[in-house]
Amino acid sequence: MIVEVVSIGDEILKGSIVNTNSAFISHELLKAGIKVTRQTALSDEPSLLREGLQECFERSDLIITTGGLGPTLDDITREVVADLFGCDFYFNEEVAKDLKRRYGDHLISLENQATVPKGALILKNQVGTAPGLIFTSEYKTMILLPGVPREMEAMVINEVLPYLKKKAFKQVVYHAHTSYFSILPESAIDPVLRQIRSDFPNLEIGIYPSHGVVAVSFLSNEKESLQHAVDKLESSFKLYLFPSKSGRIEEAVHEWMIQNKKTLAFAESCTGGALSSAITAIPGASDYFLGSLVTYSNSLKETVLSVPPAILEQYGAVSGETVHAMWEGLIKMTGADFGIAVSGIAGPSGGTKEKPVGTVWAAIGPKDRPPEIGSFVAFGNRKMVISSTANKLFGSFYRKLSHGIPCFPFLIP
Amino acid sequence: MIVEVVSIGDEILKGSIVNTNSAFISHELLKAGIKVTRQTALSDEPSLLREGLQECFERSDLIITTGGLGPTLDDITREVVADLFGCDFYFNEEVAKDLKRRYGDHLISLENQATVPKGALILKNQVGTAPGLIFTSEYKTMILLPGVPREMEAMVINEVLPYLKKKAFKQVVYHAHTSYFSILPESAIDPVLRQIRSDFPNLEIGIYPSHGVVAVSFLSNEKESLQHAVDKLESSFKLYLFPSKSGRIEEAVHEWMIQNKKTLAFAESCTGGALSSAITAIPGASDYFLGSLVTYSNSLKETVLSVPPAILEQYGAVSGETVHAMWEGLIKMTGADFGIAVSGIAGPSGGTKEKPVGTVWAAIGPKDRPPEIGSFVAFGNRKMVISSTANKLFGSFYRKLSHGIPCFPFLIP
Repeated sequence: MIVEVVSIGDEILKGSIVNTNSAFISHELLKAGIKVTRQTALSDEPSLLREGLQECFERSDLIITTGGLGPTLDDITREVVADLFGCDFYFNEEVAKDLKRRYGDHLISLENQATVPKGALILKNQVGTAPGLIFTSEYKTMILLPGVPREMEAMVINEVLPYLKKKAFKQVVYHAHTSYFSILPESAIDPVLRQIRSDFPNLEIGIYPSHGVVAVSFLSNEKESLQHAVDKLESSFKLYLFPSKSGRIEEAVHEWMIQNKKTLAFAESCTGGALSSAITAIPGASDYFLGSLVTYSNSLKETVLSVPPAILEQYGAVSGETVHAMWEGLIKMTGADFGIAVSGIAGPSGGTKEKPVGTVWAAIGPKDRPPEIGSFVAFGNRKMVISSTANKLFGSFYRKLSHGIPCFPFLIP
Repeated sequence: MIVEVVSIGDEILKGSIVNTNSAFISHELLKAGIKVTRQTALSDEPSLLREGLQECFERSDLIITTGGLGPTLDDITREVVADLFGCDFYFNEEVAKDLKRRYGDHLISLENQATVPKGALILKNQVGTAPGLIFTSEYKTMILLPGVPREMEAMVINEVLPYLKKKAFKQVVYHAHTSYFSILPESAIDPVLRQIRSDFPNLEIGIYPSHGVVAVSFLSNEKESLQHAVDKLESSFKLYLFPSKSGRIEEAVHEWMIQNKKTLAFAESCTGGALSSAITAIPGASDYFLGSLVTYSNSLKETVLSVPPAILEQYGAVSGETVHAMWEGLIKMTGADFGIAVSGIAGPSGGTKEKPVGTVWAAIGPKDRPPEIGSFVAFGNRKMVISSTANKLFGSFYRKLSHGIPCFPFLIP
């Protein structure tokens, strides 16, 4: 079965927006056992769209489109697809009733949005105005979804996946598993994956390193092979493994803090609030997270964290001595059970021969013991230095919390 | 001319990664006057890739691919395309020499990466090992780039755009302009855009609202029409306009601070470090940014910012009184020339009938006057509330700095 995800809209072809919809739909379908064969982005210019959708219709068995269902002039996906399936339009009282209930009687786009193709199945939009549509013929199924991510996502979860499941669209029973590792380089995992590949030739393997975190995903139609491969991989690197739904290492720290009823605070310099932002992006962070003292300037390191000026003078802001003093000030100021203090050179300027761009010093530990202090060099541009510093610190901290392993040096197997 | 951008790799079709490469290439081409007609993502499974690339080859005149140029088994793009163009392979001494210079004599993938198709033009990879390739026939041009974003981006800027320019690939002389507005709802801009559309029917218009910032882009082959349209739009909303290369409102604040040699600090609660992260992501922020006191808990509001417990008790953490006290504590603690203090309910829980999720209070101003205090309700899920709160505060603050307009209430035209 050929499955194609189609994104419609010139804003994608102009590169004005990044196409996150295709990734979302492909990922959700895969989890439901349906592999996407192809993703396509098409213009909303009528002749290009018509031609492109005609091609998809000929090539693919199941097609899921996003975009072009709204009430404006550019929104022509419904018309083009209704044409392909030979459907007329009619005013659907039920859609109109639902729109009136949610938006009142004076919704300008009411008539437009409630006028739908005959014979198409209607998918409720719980978030916006444009209903989704499912067109079917003997061999082809085409599902039209709105382009606004929140509307599309709700519709995929609540309407499309149950529909596909009911219609037994599953190609094969796929089993998928993703394992996440932190502070483990891709090169260390590679030999084990090669072994796994030779042991299980039918297993599909993906490895996705991202700023200090590596995701390894397996896909197989044999549940047992999959389990063996997962066991082999995870037992090889169990001290680097972390549990997470989203693949974000801070989620593992978050869960640990909640389960162990401890509090946490940061003193950040080079990360500029990135540690704090990552933690507070997770709902429920306020249960344990006290805050972060982002002392970007030396003056704030002195006034807020009581770092002695002599230490800054003698060792510099990026040094073990400074992060030690920052950590002590943090614990004193906040009383947190655990603290992380970090200072480094995010670049692009500020590097020296002794302390190149990417040099990071950190102090980590529970309040009742002296902190562990160590340093590393993060790689890449400013954004990458900040992001991988955050991930590496969370990773090292989580290893300490869950396995009692020292934070420094980062141990590479 | 049909122009197609093709991303190769199962990680895209599985939704494991979001396809940012296509957006980057499309955007850069558009700025160079070349409009992308179609984006495609293909599997790296050999038969599917062969079939997909064959289709592209038949359909499109200029094709730019990313991915599948590395040394591993999955990397077969070179072979498949060399087949389409009927090219053999040879060992290129110059590529080998460059790789040895950068990676030493013992690079395992040296032979693989220096073996390239005959007749293809070679594009230098300044960041990684895989060279890019340009294949040409009488009617078709196919450009193969690596999939790693940093490698691809450098190659597009340094090699591909100059090549396309030299070969006069420009379809039409396109002129493009993007204007950015903050704290201005899309619905306010819409009537003006409709007027512009009727005045300049050949102008292409895009409007991209994102968390409190709206980008409006015009594209035209007539420079004069474009300029008239830009003038009409920008003069209609000049108090909301902000200058930025990236479209980020914090960049405008950053430039103002540097030009006016003032210092800035934040006291953040609900934004959890998002204001600070946004500012410190910009190189050079350390010239004016002192830091942010992320007082997520009430205890830190008291100890770090000296917010009187009685105020938190009586008015709650999300109140004008609390942000006023936070702002005063911030200025006292940091001595910054300008301060922003913010507290709100990011959700999903914590909302009440009086203060629903999204309720935000903020205090903004220069240190030598009482701050302006106001509130608004941000819309959406936790991520959206945080992100649009940051953008709205930066937008309002920038309007105050550049035009002397009060921060509150947000004025909607």
